[in-house]
Amino acid sequence: MAGHLVRAGLDVVVWNRTVEKSAPIREAGAKVAPSLADLADRCDVIFVCVNRSEDVRECLREMIQHAAPGTLFVDHSTISPMAAQSFATELRAHGMQFVDAPITGGSMGAQKGTLTVFCGGDEDAVAKAIETMKPYSGRAERVGPSGSGQMMKLANQMAVGGALLALCESMAFCERAGLDLEQAMSMIGSGAGGSWAFQNYGPKLLNRDWRPGFSIKNQRKDFGYCREAARSLGAKIPATELCDLLLSELDHAGRGEETTAALFDGYLKGGE
Amino acid sequence: MAGHLVRAGLDVVVWNRTVEKSAPIREAGAKVAPSLADLADRCDVIFVCVNRSEDVRECLREMIQHAAPGTLFVDHSTISPMAAQSFATELRAHGMQFVDAPITGGSMGAQKGTLTVFCGGDEDAVAKAIETMKPYSGRAERVGPSGSGQMMKLANQMAVGGALLALCESMAFCERAGLDLEQAMSMIGSGAGGSWAFQNYGPKLLNRDWRPGFSIKNQRKDFGYCREAARSLGAKIPATELCDLLLSELDHAGRGEETTAALFDGYLKGGE
Repeated sequence: MAGHLVRAGLDVVVWNRTVEKSAPIREAGAKVAPSLADLADRCDVIFVCVNRSEDVRECLREMIQHAAPGTLFVDHSTISPMAAQSFATELRAHGMQFVDAPITGGSMGAQKGTLTVFCGGDEDAVAKAIETMKPYSGRAERVGPSGSGQMMKLANQMAVGGALLALCESMAFCERAGLDLEQAMSMIGSGAGGSWAFQNYGPKLLNRDWRPGFSIKNQRKDFGYCREAARSLGAKIPATELCDLLLSELDHAGRGEETTAALFDGYLKGGE
Repeated sequence: MAGHLVRAGLDVVVWNRTVEKSAPIREAGAKVAPSLADLADRCDVIFVCVNRSEDVRECLREMIQHAAPGTLFVDHSTISPMAAQSFATELRAHGMQFVDAPITGGSMGAQKGTLTVFCGGDEDAVAKAIETMKPYSGRAERVGPSGSGQMMKLANQMAVGGALLALCESMAFCERAGLDLEQAMSMIGSGAGGSWAFQNYGPKLLNRDWRPGFSIKNQRKDFGYCREAARSLGAKIPATELCDLLLSELDHAGRGEETTAALFDGYLKGGE
């Protein structure tokens, strides 16, 4: 993502907790800041892409005292919508702006510059964020006020999880029934049961290839935020809860770093 | 489907429990048999398309005494795989053949002649069935011995149900979060959460259009066979069971004739 910004001619400064990870992007032309404080001092638009709400909070805390009023923070992490709202409020009190901007499209979308970005925040801040993200986004849209980007990303994760359940449950049933999985996947996947999951996770199932990919641990992290948000909205998300429960069995069996498609394996075990 | 056979130049005889329903196909050039016994007497390949296992059994019982040895029965109904196996065994004892050949693709697929057909049975019987069904099938394949066609159709229904869950859960969450459903459906449906259900049921959700379509009652009928088959295979199908449970609430509320996409409504109720 930063590489696309460099290639677009922007003046890019990066920071990573693990210094060595910055090497390729430095070679591509970005400057590497020695600390978040230094980065905040030098940038007027700052993108954050970490893991959990508390990681975003920690990054913001290290930068907020060093950033100038008017600084725009854009967070690409998938975190709690309520946390995103509180960050926006806190930064507004410092005369700064915050846009929650979780992404979907995977590492392939990042490389190709075709990521989908769900943006939540004030209209002017989101417009500026969308303009800046153009080099790596295929589709970036404002979906509502602060927190809305996270809400829609969580809905996206529910859709992803449900499609994964459908694929794995249906294919595990075929396996138990002694059917040819490749034929079943092709016939079922090209009809009313078809999905992105069938097309993209299907081959992983056939080859029993559980290398990441999007890991079980990260899917479960997102599901945790789904559950928190659903509670606060009074929304029912039983399929997401079911998917989380089934993935938790693999997670507890030490398989949390495998791709979520390994759920297929989970279906085949302990069914009797 | 019979219309396609007539247009292909085959000598078609039809029978329907409700006589008036045969009028259009008679006008198209088919003969109408006064009874199943008469139909069985006049045909060497007989297609059955009814609702439940017991309906198929009843039709076969009325025909079996009047059909000649060598008659091929092809059943397009979605029924129990175990029932399909028993019909095949029974007909074999009479020197006749049986192919389970449940279809997917909906009324649109039937009209366009692009149905997918999951065929189970002996190779020569299936080959003959596939050849005869060519005028109305887009893809008809043998998937294994008797009962296998039903097994794969049930797996198809699980995939359809899971994709429906994913769509409705994700979109009901968006609705509660105050997001724009059309935007959410477009952004989520074009990514890793996308599916045939998003593309085809999505517009129904937006318009709250619950006209059938594939009805809740028929989906639940198929889910009953899924559960029976899963028990016999020792397969886990919790997503299918969840989908059936949620649809049962709409069914019990007198909405069984609505399209399955009305599950969206079920998600929005009683979530607190």
